[in-house]
Amino acid sequence: MTDSIQDRLTQAGITLPEPAAPVASYVPAVEAGGLLYISGQLPFSEGQVMTGRLGEDRDLEAGQKAARLCGIMLLAQINKALGSLDRVERIVKLGVFISSAPDFTDQPKVANGASDLMEQVFGEAGRHARSAVGVPVLPLGAAVEIDAIVAIKQV
Amino acid sequence: MTDSIQDRLTQAGITLPEPAAPVASYVPAVEAGGLLYISGQLPFSEGQVMTGRLGEDRDLEAGQKAARLCGIMLLAQINKALGSLDRVERIVKLGVFISSAPDFTDQPKVANGASDLMEQVFGEAGRHARSAVGVPVLPLGAAVEIDAIVAIKQV
Amino acid sequence: MTDSIQDRLTQAGITLPEPAAPVASYVPAVEAGGLLYISGQLPFSEGQVMTGRLGEDRDLEAGQKAARLCGIMLLAQINKALGSLDRVERIVKLGVFISSAPDFTDQPKVANGASDLMEQVFGEAGRHARSAVGVPVLPLGAAVEIDAIVAIKQV
Repeated sequence: MTDSIQDRLTQAGITLPEPAAPVASYVPAVEAGGLLYISGQLPFSEGQVMTGRLGEDRDLEAGQKAARLCGIMLLAQINKALGSLDRVERIVKLGVFISSAPDFTDQPKVANGASDLMEQVFGEAGRHARSAVGVPVLPLGAAVEIDAIVAIKQV
Repeated sequence: MTDSIQDRLTQAGITLPEPAAPVASYVPAVEAGGLLYISGQLPFSEGQVMTGRLGEDRDLEAGQKAARLCGIMLLAQINKALGSLDRVERIVKLGVFISSAPDFTDQPKVANGASDLMEQVFGEAGRHARSAVGVPVLPLGAAVEIDAIVAIKQV
Repeated sequence: MTDSIQDRLTQAGITLPEPAAPVASYVPAVEAGGLLYISGQLPFSEGQVMTGRLGEDRDLEAGQKAARLCGIMLLAQINKALGSLDRVERIVKLGVFISSAPDFTDQPKVANGASDLMEQVFGEAGRHARSAVGVPVLPLGAAVEIDAIVAIKQV
């Protein structure tokens, strides 16, 4: 990676984890037409998935942390698929699914945990389109799940 | 815009609103590989988000209106990002998320509020692929959220 | 189709159904930039949609069957849109929405019903990125809905 992106990761105190292996019959990332499609990532912290539901047993701060953890796992998957985060031309789109009690409506603030990370790491190239919605439940009881589309630098 | 698209907007009584600014750390639209990815849009009417849940405190007609308002905001974002709706080659895909009571199953009819709008404005080029699903809750308590992928005319 | 893909369909005991017509103002599939975007497909069996909610009135096995039925309908739509499944370069991404009780967290196992099918039919080219999330309710009360992005072989 360039000094710049590695510096930013270091400054943010981020060490990329071993990317999570899919527990099922799919792959973490597929490249097509200059774009990398990354499978929905769950928030892992020290090998444990961060579970819970916003507005019920998780507060906003915990939700933002979960979203950031999903973002870090996205970075790990991108890094593995492309060989380096330097090959990222642009973070194009994040799809953010947030386990939510029926009256929890701060999905955008939760999703910022991942969005802020992308801008922190990639600068202008990290600014992306996004959808953020509430869902009743996620795989393994996770608090947040995020998938992504990334544009790849063409050599 | 060409007379044709402007005419259709006028005939439909649609004045494009000022596109809503993202309340968070992302951007309304990103172009990549000839496609424009537009962030999930909420249904704004006179500056107020249209809230509620289908099958609970919103009926089908209100849901369709909310979907149409999301569609109008998508048009405003496309217009701002591309400089003109004339640069739309094709509406490729709408992702429609509908705040739904557990027994409300008319998501397709609700989503038509946006789908019909796209065909009304762009004709054949407005006919798109779509997913429409129920969710328990959306940002700001919105009744509907819709994101989009648009193919851009290459000059 | 090549013998290979037709053989695999036959071996799997799959006869492609007449693709379901959209009940609304959208189209089953749109091609853009070398990719085919397929609308969310519901699980039809003998003309009836497979309804229900995982963790409530549908067990894991039923959910996997529903996901597989969505996958078969995706195949039928791809076949119709491209003229042949032989034109599939790669299944790029599946978006899997699973009608789920709030405590049902086995969405990945359910989604495998469709993912396994894709690998069964296309081999390596069928291995895709994926997101799988719980939702409270789906169109027509369906148990599962799946949309897809497919890369098309360029002649």
